[in-house]
Amino acid sequence: MTVEAQSPLIRKLSTFVALSEAELAVLARLHRRRRTFVAGRDMVHQGQSGQLAYILSSGWVCSYKIQPDGTRQIVDFQVPGDFLGLRSVLLRTSDHSFEPIVDIEAAEVLTDDLLEAFAQTPRLATAILWAASRDEAMVVEHLVGIGRRDADARMAHFLLELGSRLALVGIGSKEGFDCPLTQYHLADTLGLSAVHVNRVLRQLRESGLVTFRDGHVTFHDYGGLVELAEFDSAYLDQSGPLLK
Amino acid sequence: MTVEAQSPLIRKLSTFVALSEAELAVLARLHRRRRTFVAGRDMVHQGQSGQLAYILSSGWVCSYKIQPDGTRQIVDFQVPGDFLGLRSVLLRTSDHSFEPIVDIEAAEVLTDDLLEAFAQTPRLATAILWAASRDEAMVVEHLVGIGRRDADARMAHFLLELGSRLALVGIGSKEGFDCPLTQYHLADTLGLSAVHVNRVLRQLRESGLVTFRDGHVTFHDYGGLVELAEFDSAYLDQSGPLLK
Repeated sequence: MTVEAQSPLIRKLSTFVALSEAELAVLARLHRRRRTFVAGRDMVHQGQSGQLAYILSSGWVCSYKIQPDGTRQIVDFQVPGDFLGLRSVLLRTSDHSFEPIVDIEAAEVLTDDLLEAFAQTPRLATAILWAASRDEAMVVEHLVGIGRRDADARMAHFLLELGSRLALVGIGSKEGFDCPLTQYHLADTLGLSAVHVNRVLRQLRESGLVTFRDGHVTFHDYGGLVELAEFDSAYLDQSGPLLK
Repeated sequence: MTVEAQSPLIRKLSTFVALSEAELAVLARLHRRRRTFVAGRDMVHQGQSGQLAYILSSGWVCSYKIQPDGTRQIVDFQVPGDFLGLRSVLLRTSDHSFEPIVDIEAAEVLTDDLLEAFAQTPRLATAILWAASRDEAMVVEHLVGIGRRDADARMAHFLLELGSRLALVGIGSKEGFDCPLTQYHLADTLGLSAVHVNRVLRQLRESGLVTFRDGHVTFHDYGGLVELAEFDSAYLDQSGPLLK
């Protein structure tokens, strides 16, 4: 199997830049230290220092902050091809925690290896910064969602975003995608109660738009859901290579 | 006047890295194209492509997204020393808008100049990425604030964050800071109505914690406000140079 086929990150970055052999080789080296992590045990704790970054190759991870009163706000989910903790590498302590939702496989990336890769291939650095920019654009969308969208539109937007992200790495489509999230993950992401999450999902199902059941999201009326969420995927910026 | 004295960005980056003469010279070149912008007119529109980045040297800017229904969510404010649109340079279209709150002065930075500066001085690149990481950590905190903090704690946290950021560039302290924001800015930032903002500010004032009046924020009881907001400034990561 080629590295390209093994690495969702390479697939994702290829959306932004047509990678050369040399750049692919540097990326392959970043994937050297492969590790597995079990579901439910934090990989990185909020406040931890000296942490590493990871490239997620299979499974889902959630990043979250715990408030002093014990409530949890999920900031984002990482899916195959995403970096974990890329940002935290540069801050002295991690500003949030990462927890695998299922058993995952990820490559550990040392800060020095990353900076060396950046120095060797500025185009690759630009591509990785593009991915980081896109991650931040998602956090901004989540902020707008919690601040300004009603519960139905918020849920619809979230499921559409996940679908687009997964499609980029070949594990989702406009038909739907496999999804290991529970109603508690959805609640802590969208700022809703678990009961409210259930009600919203029932409404979306009964409106013939989308069903989330038994670990699978099925889009019944993709266009209708886009309209409800006023989903404009421009912020995901995944419509083909920018740098040739 | 030296460049250091003129540039809040240099002052801010010096928190992270002790800059060499060569690095200071590269930074000074990034400040070449100085421009002024008037209050209230967007510098960058949401959806605009081919946009530039800016280094803000004086004044305040707000970055926001307008929802299709016309409501506005303010994502963050930029104060002297901050980059504007650093992220958008790498995305094909800007995912949000930037509007000066007062007349401002900013240096226009071309993408090519930025990438060239990165290639010349990897340490400077790391310092700028640190600043970008810190900006993202703030957006995450705002997400947590809207999702999980009550209105009083949300306001207190926001004012404390602003105070810390401004102190870093020498225009704020634990006594207070000048602040050009209106109640509408606060409302669109915190996901509250303007009426609610007024009520919250009155409560904080009557509790003897903080007063925001006539363009100035005065901290009466900094420790008490930190306690109310459960403010832990670690995410701002501004406690002295990391790279020597």
